[in-house]
Amino acid sequence: MEIIRTVAEMRAWRKQAGKLAFVPTMGNLHEGHLKLVAAARERAEKVVVSIFVNRLQFGQGEDFDAYPRTFDADCAKLAAAGVDALFFPTERELYPRVRQDFNVEPPHIQDELCGAFRPGHFRGVATVVTKLFNIVQPDLACFGKKDYQQLHVIQAMIADLNSPIEIVPVDTGRAGDGLALSSRNGYLSAEERAEAPRLYRNLSMIRDGLLSGSQDYAALENAARDDLAAAGWTVDYVEVRQADTLEVAHAGEKRLVALAAARLGKTRLIDNIEVFR
Amino acid sequence: MEIIRTVAEMRAWRKQAGKLAFVPTMGNLHEGHLKLVAAARERAEKVVVSIFVNRLQFGQGEDFDAYPRTFDADCAKLAAAGVDALFFPTERELYPRVRQDFNVEPPHIQDELCGAFRPGHFRGVATVVTKLFNIVQPDLACFGKKDYQQLHVIQAMIADLNSPIEIVPVDTGRAGDGLALSSRNGYLSAEERAEAPRLYRNLSMIRDGLLSGSQDYAALENAARDDLAAAGWTVDYVEVRQADTLEVAHAGEKRLVALAAARLGKTRLIDNIEVFR
Repeated sequence: MEIIRTVAEMRAWRKQAGKLAFVPTMGNLHEGHLKLVAAARERAEKVVVSIFVNRLQFGQGEDFDAYPRTFDADCAKLAAAGVDALFFPTERELYPRVRQDFNVEPPHIQDELCGAFRPGHFRGVATVVTKLFNIVQPDLACFGKKDYQQLHVIQAMIADLNSPIEIVPVDTGRAGDGLALSSRNGYLSAEERAEAPRLYRNLSMIRDGLLSGSQDYAALENAARDDLAAAGWTVDYVEVRQADTLEVAHAGEKRLVALAAARLGKTRLIDNIEVFR
Repeated sequence: MEIIRTVAEMRAWRKQAGKLAFVPTMGNLHEGHLKLVAAARERAEKVVVSIFVNRLQFGQGEDFDAYPRTFDADCAKLAAAGVDALFFPTERELYPRVRQDFNVEPPHIQDELCGAFRPGHFRGVATVVTKLFNIVQPDLACFGKKDYQQLHVIQAMIADLNSPIEIVPVDTGRAGDGLALSSRNGYLSAEERAEAPRLYRNLSMIRDGLLSGSQDYAALENAARDDLAAAGWTVDYVEVRQADTLEVAHAGEKRLVALAAARLGKTRLIDNIEVFR
């Protein structure tokens, strides 16, 4: 596996890569990332993964500095998974003047759901993904459904800015007890880890309610919020939304997604389940 | 010359085009545009020109509806100039949902100079150029220095978002009396046309002052403003700025540009002269 640290080398490598699939990550790789790599491998001649912890998408007081950097272990996993190249730029390489002057500005959805709790997060995501896409120039890129709102923002951006890149959504990887795989799970104490699957259990109950015909989304959301709060979680949101647009869902909607974000101690976890009924 | 009206056809054509140069325009082509085409031809195997009057970069009360559409004459000029393909999309093709949700947001320079008089203009330019670049995927693109602030915004955007496209600046085409070629010159009455070169004459006087060593930019700017106002113009701005950044110029600066925008009757004219001393 080639390790590429500069924009110029990445562009040169890309020229000889044929049909190219791209998996952008922030590193600290787990089985969820390797599912993205596997999806990429199936669809292209070559696979490039990037590791870049993007300061632009972290807010004040968020975990940018604490975010786990595990480069050697990540390299071993990617090489074993058959990745052809790892793009691993420094901050100075991607932000040579420190500040980013031009930003890709998403519409109002960037201020809802996770965006309401992470101001500027989706602008930072849209902007760095645009930069990485311009550098790597892949034919397709794989994103996990675990970050459902991020996937939506990127799909909408690609369509709206006519970007020539196919976005491949990949199902969320889960532990045996249902917990969505996430780098932030590493922040959990043993006790918190045992408690963490409650988020998925509550989303599953919402799914079951929706599949059995409930149109009272607020009742389902409130039950989940109450259960989490009673178990000591601080709930950012639990919401049933339209799966395709992430707009507020009205009764009768057939393609839905239940999304939640909640904090267990200092760790913020997110998860979601699509419900097509 | 091939005439291409859809994004899908444009992408398909691009795949077989080899090294490709791109000249985005709003049509109503004059010799200034043909200089851009000539610069493009020198640098690539194939040349594509787009004609699209981009509603997004016109403000309320501006001349979007009145902007001259001269498709047949434009086609004849482009074919004669050896252009390989003309991309001529409808509004519905570029803005299928009418509104544009994702925008490329330039930094503060978008609110200065022309931007102070045309709110949202440079956001509209940056966004449509991003869309056109994503559709056409050229190796290089030619822009006129006549729209100096636009050229700056696009060069800065390309660098900041790591876009893999070379931007080629092309000198302003001028009539024999110095007037910068512009589609908007067609709005001028015979009397206004005779008066119009005063803008260039005043910029030339600023150039001469700068070259003879003046550091008092305000005095040079004020003399030009006064001369234009006395001749019946409404002056939007006359400013000496740093050529490379368009930031405010301080005494002693060596790479300068004098820029002006002023209205003659209902017609808004812009022009500029670079001064490297």
